[in-house]
Amino acid sequence: MSLEQEINESNAYYLAHNIAVIHKKPTPVQLVKVDYPKRSAAVIKEAYFRRPSTTDYNGVYRGYYLDFDAKETNNKVSFPLKNFHEHQIEHLRACVQQGGVCFAFLKFSHTNQLFLLPASKLFAYWDEQDSGGRKSIPLKNIEQDGYQITYQFNPLIPYIDAVDRLIEDLGV
Amino acid sequence: MSLEQEINESNAYYLAHNIAVIHKKPTPVQLVKVDYPKRSAAVIKEAYFRRPSTTDYNGVYRGYYLDFDAKETNNKVSFPLKNFHEHQIEHLRACVQQGGVCFAFLKFSHTNQLFLLPASKLFAYWDEQDSGGRKSIPLKNIEQDGYQITYQFNPLIPYIDAVDRLIEDLGV
Ligand SMILES: [Mg+2]
Ligand SMILES: [Mg+2]
Repeated sequence: MSLEQEINESNAYYLAHNIAVIHKKPTPVQLVKVDYPKRSAAVIKEAYFRRPSTTDYNGVYRGYYLDFDAKETNNKVSFPLKNFHEHQIEHLRACVQQGGVCFAFLKFSHTNQLFLLPASKLFAYWDEQDSGGRKSIPLKNIEQDGYQITYQFNPLIPYIDAVDRLIEDLGV
Repeated sequence: MSLEQEINESNAYYLAHNIAVIHKKPTPVQLVKVDYPKRSAAVIKEAYFRRPSTTDYNGVYRGYYLDFDAKETNNKVSFPLKNFHEHQIEHLRACVQQGGVCFAFLKFSHTNQLFLLPASKLFAYWDEQDSGGRKSIPLKNIEQDGYQITYQFNPLIPYIDAVDRLIEDLGV
């Protein structure tokens, strides 16, 4: 299962149990040609993927606005920043400015290690790149700056527990 | 310009001026056939529209999670409830339960009258339908229960002013 599917499954659990309402946003497409046959569903015959203007996930939990993107890497000792796009960082910055609880969901695929990295920490690594900083975030820094999440059953990824710790540490 | 375009334009203004971060969610599509030609963008050759599981708009404003759908009618004296779908109402209920600030954005096209109707009021009309209630919300009730919004320039629809009043009245 991809990280996205794992998160979607966890979100379905949280929704069904009235714990949080978090949804993945659909991928935006530019429609070019759509057929409307009589007596059956519209068929999209030509369309293109558009670049999203936001992150993949957002929603509401205990009155907090949550916003995040999820990324996986095959790397073992660091998380490459090229997994993020400028527009995602800009979107997260705008949400943080409005008081949202924002983070990145990082997975090291080889070891199945999962972390929730606060947006503020992500911004620091992102901005350092331009001033000669590293192009990736060392795993040991993620272990220190982030909140590790352990797979379990129902939900598969209990990331709301890490969100609780983040909210507490943010003091919001 | 459609109501959706008008709201999108207003959201672009709010985003550019660091006032609020509200986006329309893309329409979900079920991909069936996608071509990946060499050296050019992927082309979607067959796809179908899926029913969204949420409302169209959400985002963050002053730490509040906002969630709403926008609807227009050609009716003159009432707003038909058939413009709403069960899954949208259920989604709004779940968001309200999590402390979100939720509403419907209603437009009477003939008169260009715009209202923000709090979700709690919408639920009341929705639920009454099943027990022999009206199938539409009278304009005079919307005038009383909702917040009227007047078109202006920049933003075209200054709905965040109405959100401020709603937040104040909700006492959250
Ligand atoms: Mg992603
Ligand atoms: Mg709509």
